[in-house]
Amino acid sequence: MATLANLTTYQQRIDDFLKQQLAQLPLNDTRLMDAMHYGLLIGGKRMRPFLTYSTGEMLGVALADLDPIAAALECIHAYSLLHDDLPAMDDDDLRRGQPTCHKQFDEATAILAGDSLQTLAFDIVASHNFQSVNARGQIQLVKMLARASGYRGMCGGQAMDLAATDKQVDLDHLERIHRLKTGALLEAAILMPTLCVSDIDPAHVTLLKQYAQTIGLLYQVHDDIIDITSSEATLGKPSGSDIEANKSTYPALLGLSGAQQKEQELYANSLHALDGLPYNTQNLANFSTFIVKRDH
Amino acid sequence: MATLANLTTYQQRIDDFLKQQLAQLPLNDTRLMDAMHYGLLIGGKRMRPFLTYSTGEMLGVALADLDPIAAALECIHAYSLLHDDLPAMDDDDLRRGQPTCHKQFDEATAILAGDSLQTLAFDIVASHNFQSVNARGQIQLVKMLARASGYRGMCGGQAMDLAATDKQVDLDHLERIHRLKTGALLEAAILMPTLCVSDIDPAHVTLLKQYAQTIGLLYQVHDDIIDITSSEATLGKPSGSDIEANKSTYPALLGLSGAQQKEQELYANSLHALDGLPYNTQNLANFSTFIVKRDH
Repeated sequence: MATLANLTTYQQRIDDFLKQQLAQLPLNDTRLMDAMHYGLLIGGKRMRPFLTYSTGEMLGVALADLDPIAAALECIHAYSLLHDDLPAMDDDDLRRGQPTCHKQFDEATAILAGDSLQTLAFDIVASHNFQSVNARGQIQLVKMLARASGYRGMCGGQAMDLAATDKQVDLDHLERIHRLKTGALLEAAILMPTLCVSDIDPAHVTLLKQYAQTIGLLYQVHDDIIDITSSEATLGKPSGSDIEANKSTYPALLGLSGAQQKEQELYANSLHALDGLPYNTQNLANFSTFIVKRDH
Repeated sequence: MATLANLTTYQQRIDDFLKQQLAQLPLNDTRLMDAMHYGLLIGGKRMRPFLTYSTGEMLGVALADLDPIAAALECIHAYSLLHDDLPAMDDDDLRRGQPTCHKQFDEATAILAGDSLQTLAFDIVASHNFQSVNARGQIQLVKMLARASGYRGMCGGQAMDLAATDKQVDLDHLERIHRLKTGALLEAAILMPTLCVSDIDPAHVTLLKQYAQTIGLLYQVHDDIIDITSSEATLGKPSGSDIEANKSTYPALLGLSGAQQKEQELYANSLHALDGLPYNTQNLANFSTFIVKRDH
């Protein structure tokens, strides 16, 4: 697998910050707290924090202001996994090779832990004392987080994905699903840091948005490909599970080689978007490479 | 049942505002949108909006600034009902005499509709152009909403309530459950409007907080009492369902007459808190009476 400079550093940083956030909460209910901890800190690539830290550092934003953004996005991502894994949704027993939250605890606790992690995301952004953002900018951060997460973004995409199960959907529809389901949060990970730069050139924000949208699709196309080509041991979940679940995928619509060609196009487009930026975009370019090289 | 001045007016106002909020969303997924609409607009007493509008108007806050606060609280309340009714939680088939959301749609849709309504609450508060609150105050509104809703508030209380099922808990513990589970959101309904008054006397906020915490418990004690004394037709759900579910209740701990005495004490305390306020508190006093007179 391709390695990313700073990935481990950022992973450690966000894990420490998330642990601090949980440690600050009063001990209302041990089981719920344990489930939130389990859902939030069991591991994962921390892609969204990586994108937030990389983009933010590239733009000169202080790391201390990137922590709450990365943490909030990770809370939203973690809650969505807890709920997506539930029997009524994807009914998954394993996540990252470990029992899913409702298997480790129980369904009611997994639902409540997801609900509480969503709230915590907004609590973290609203409670942070930002250095580089005034209160007006902080409200914009809350708003962007909400729009990426809810019906307008991730939740809407998840509902469209469920509706598309057992159905043949065309490429445009599949892209729309993924732009919302996974793309919206990745886009927020890249665009929320731009709100911390008061004099940023809108043209540069547009290019970062193009990059974000492209890697969002790139991530999904690659995910669909490795669902077919990787083993269960590598994936940490059964391979072929998308096909098993009758989900529309890029390989199903384009064939495996067509999907691989699509992946190469998106990869090139993502690098092209970065070319127009007057910053050191090496970390983000490496991230594109990281996506297409990953095997789980 | 006791009637409340303005109740119908406020109900109509919040329903119209909520409908507008839903109508503004893009049509990503019809089924999810229908479920959100169902969960949010099937009815209900709209107690939290009533408290927000009554407190806000008493303090001289413009109705237009109270709309997003009332709407956000109602979104949080509605999402909590959708999730609480799920088979893995309280497993209720009826809510307000109608099929619960997961019965009318399906479990996955009810989970997602709840998730989306929670996000919408934060979206509404962050997107509103407040007249009486600057951006700093708007962030405080988001923060107060989050703290009332998540692990620190409602969700934490729900988890404690689940943990207390089939167990004997003492009165202090029962009160702590209800202070979080139902009290936190009622308190926010009363205290969020105080954030819209820049020069409010902190002593008055303290009294309003006392009032809010008292009626939060009063509501729960009364709820426990009518669960025993009212019929299924009146309640819109099976009577005795708390006992059926082995939940700790005030009548179980204090006996029915002890619970009724507790109710009278709380009622008197709520009116006493209002006595110290230099405002026209008639609407809030009537609300205390409304709680103890309601039969469903």
